[in-house]
Amino acid sequence: MTRETIAGGFARRIADIRFEALPELVRTRAVIGVADTLAVALAGASEDCVRILRETPGICEAAGPASVIGADARVSMLDAALVNGTASHALDFDDFSSVFGGHQSAPLVAPLLALAEARAARGRDVIAAYAAGVETEIRLARAVHWHHYDKGWHPTATLGTIGAAAASAHLLGLTEPQIATALSIAASDSAGLKANFGSMTKPLHIGRSCRAGLLAALLAERGYTAGARAFEHDQGFFEVFNGAGNYDAEKLFEGWGAPWELEDDGLSLKLWPCCGSAHAAIGAGLDLRQAHGIEAEKIARIEILPHPRRLAHTDTPRPQTPLEAKFSVQYCTARALADGDVTLAHFDAAAIADPRIAALLEKTSARPHPQMGDGPDGQWSAEVIVEMAGGARHAARIDDITRDPRVMPDRAEDVRTKFMACATRALPAARAEELFERLCVLEVESDFGGLGALFSGAPAEA
Amino acid sequence: MTRETIAGGFARRIADIRFEALPELVRTRAVIGVADTLAVALAGASEDCVRILRETPGICEAAGPASVIGADARVSMLDAALVNGTASHALDFDDFSSVFGGHQSAPLVAPLLALAEARAARGRDVIAAYAAGVETEIRLARAVHWHHYDKGWHPTATLGTIGAAAASAHLLGLTEPQIATALSIAASDSAGLKANFGSMTKPLHIGRSCRAGLLAALLAERGYTAGARAFEHDQGFFEVFNGAGNYDAEKLFEGWGAPWELEDDGLSLKLWPCCGSAHAAIGAGLDLRQAHGIEAEKIARIEILPHPRRLAHTDTPRPQTPLEAKFSVQYCTARALADGDVTLAHFDAAAIADPRIAALLEKTSARPHPQMGDGPDGQWSAEVIVEMAGGARHAARIDDITRDPRVMPDRAEDVRTKFMACATRALPAARAEELFERLCVLEVESDFGGLGALFSGAPAEA
Repeated sequence: MTRETIAGGFARRIADIRFEALPELVRTRAVIGVADTLAVALAGASEDCVRILRETPGICEAAGPASVIGADARVSMLDAALVNGTASHALDFDDFSSVFGGHQSAPLVAPLLALAEARAARGRDVIAAYAAGVETEIRLARAVHWHHYDKGWHPTATLGTIGAAAASAHLLGLTEPQIATALSIAASDSAGLKANFGSMTKPLHIGRSCRAGLLAALLAERGYTAGARAFEHDQGFFEVFNGAGNYDAEKLFEGWGAPWELEDDGLSLKLWPCCGSAHAAIGAGLDLRQAHGIEAEKIARIEILPHPRRLAHTDTPRPQTPLEAKFSVQYCTARALADGDVTLAHFDAAAIADPRIAALLEKTSARPHPQMGDGPDGQWSAEVIVEMAGGARHAARIDDITRDPRVMPDRAEDVRTKFMACATRALPAARAEELFERLCVLEVESDFGGLGALFSGAPAEA
Repeated sequence: MTRETIAGGFARRIADIRFEALPELVRTRAVIGVADTLAVALAGASEDCVRILRETPGICEAAGPASVIGADARVSMLDAALVNGTASHALDFDDFSSVFGGHQSAPLVAPLLALAEARAARGRDVIAAYAAGVETEIRLARAVHWHHYDKGWHPTATLGTIGAAAASAHLLGLTEPQIATALSIAASDSAGLKANFGSMTKPLHIGRSCRAGLLAALLAERGYTAGARAFEHDQGFFEVFNGAGNYDAEKLFEGWGAPWELEDDGLSLKLWPCCGSAHAAIGAGLDLRQAHGIEAEKIARIEILPHPRRLAHTDTPRPQTPLEAKFSVQYCTARALADGDVTLAHFDAAAIADPRIAALLEKTSARPHPQMGDGPDGQWSAEVIVEMAGGARHAARIDDITRDPRVMPDRAEDVRTKFMACATRALPAARAEELFERLCVLEVESDFGGLGALFSGAPAEA
């Protein structure tokens, strides 16, 4: 008896995922993931990282079946996946998963929407395919983290490429061998370095992953071949990306579907449009402000103590650009304390130089929290301590911002406020509302072309 | 004083490369590299790995400035880079470099030809850009090998992506900061696992690298941003792909251009359309046959002793498919002994089952050569021992097939035989000859559109 390959093991489980058998919570979170991703992509569609890409020769030049988010155009599925995927992450405002160590929906939604338009899929098919993608990428994360993350791979991009292939393969209804091939092709197109965080190349990672995963599935559908053991081979994904001793393939399928990752790990929204690693400190800052009625002008000193893992790439004491500010736990926490929220407008170029915030940053220090260690929980944590001019000292601590009720809603309706704030950056309010209403009942959607016309900003039909 | 980044160090040196200052040997080898790559791409253009890709929705759908090799079509530069790059490596018949541990021209030629058509470049510009690409990718190889290679990265794909960005950036005439950005974007799009060797995904690696490198340069030209320290960052290319202690960045720029890699390491043609790791054994087999007038029917036993590094992925005693046969040192050596050559026709599906060869394979064994070690030289070596039915025992040894005069010609004219054998698989002989004559004087080419019409197989103009 031939031992099942890892790609084959994934393929069998992916092929077995049926909308009808998914728990209600999984379906709801899929809807929230799609709606939230579309919202942030609409808000991000006008960013330079998307605009430049869209205008590059060879991109979005051919007419096709797939709508471009926030642009009145229909292009090839591959171009839509590339550009819409980049838009999904342009603001670093898309949902995330603490187990994944990244953004679970961004690699999946762009290729799924493109495929759904091209192949006239039903909403329930998209929901099931989304679930297949999430299970694949988060199961991979369980096997490769945190070595993979710490080393410098960008998991949303590397694992997301394979998740995108899984989701696309599911929506295409590929056979098990085809699904296995799609995953193996995707393993060879998996890429993305954290050294490019803080630049336009970070969101580009996601666009390229969306395109690569979709292309892998389309090639597998047409008979392309790949190595059977692309994951477990001694020159395969695990050994090459992680290396011997730095991964645990046993975790891939252990207790698969019981519960689903979407139930267990959930789906955390980003309420604040900056690096997720700054969110625990923002939450603590907001709590402090509310609990003690803090006024920024009276602050003498701010001390930020994030989990060491979170501080590593957000320690930016004096951000000079919007992108740097998004990766500055100091800037984000100061904003939370000063303004009681952290909004898209706070990352406009002019806002970065706000003298009120500059004054707070002079009083701010950040260092790794001495008691926050490397256990399975508690990595999305931070403590913020504020000393007031009068001598009062206040502290607040968030132990897991990813499971804070503020960021993990269980009803699509709960994401309306963020959806509208984002979507109206690209669409008239009435159209954004119509889009949101349709997304709330994605399960019964049967016209993704019509949905695409709404989110592309195409002129309304007469 | 700010220390120059690695991307910046590359950019300064790349920007400084001028056709006028290149030694004659470098120019000639560039011409040979372009001609040989175009030849094998013409032969490979009808392979399934290319055909399926070309027919996938979203690929080659938009008309554009760049010719598709062996297909009567002009498409976007990005699509041409993807498809032509895949064709370049479809037969695994493209040139290679022993220092690179891979195929130096395949990642460069497809994007350069596409850009040359789109931007009306001159032949001398293409030659200089090709040289920039080769220096970049081989210098990277010096810094990361052999750890990079042994671990399972496919250097032609991983390092080739960055080489393609360098070559494209040079041909585009980018500024130094733009070149540095292009290289850094490319570092994040670098991918390719050896676990997919022996499948269609291997040539796809090269196509995606061609496209990724070109896209990186086009994005940098338009103001895209990337991390400044994408290579040396502690979550950058070297640390993530190789890891601490497994690379030597000092080797990147040591003695740059004195000599050029194209002079020193040269450019080795593949005379036989199979994995380069089987070539030393083929060479030894051909030498044996010629020296001793060996007749296959009288062979009692064949013993193949390749360098261990070469045997690792060519130890395929009973190949069942053309792709397996290309990675079978046993099949290839048996062919050399039986037929006095190893040709494209020997990898047709019917040829694999040839009973004459099957009989020889029954008498063949392969094991790592016990005396061939891990020194700087001698990795492209093999010994072949043949025992004849009459008891005679003959041995031949090749110490470095990559520097064998048969595979390292110094005149463009010397590649005519291989060029014509390959090109006539896609083009009429007269057109193949016309194309070859023009390539021999690539230096003075001023009409890449016309050249593209020739190699795309477009109907001749009236």
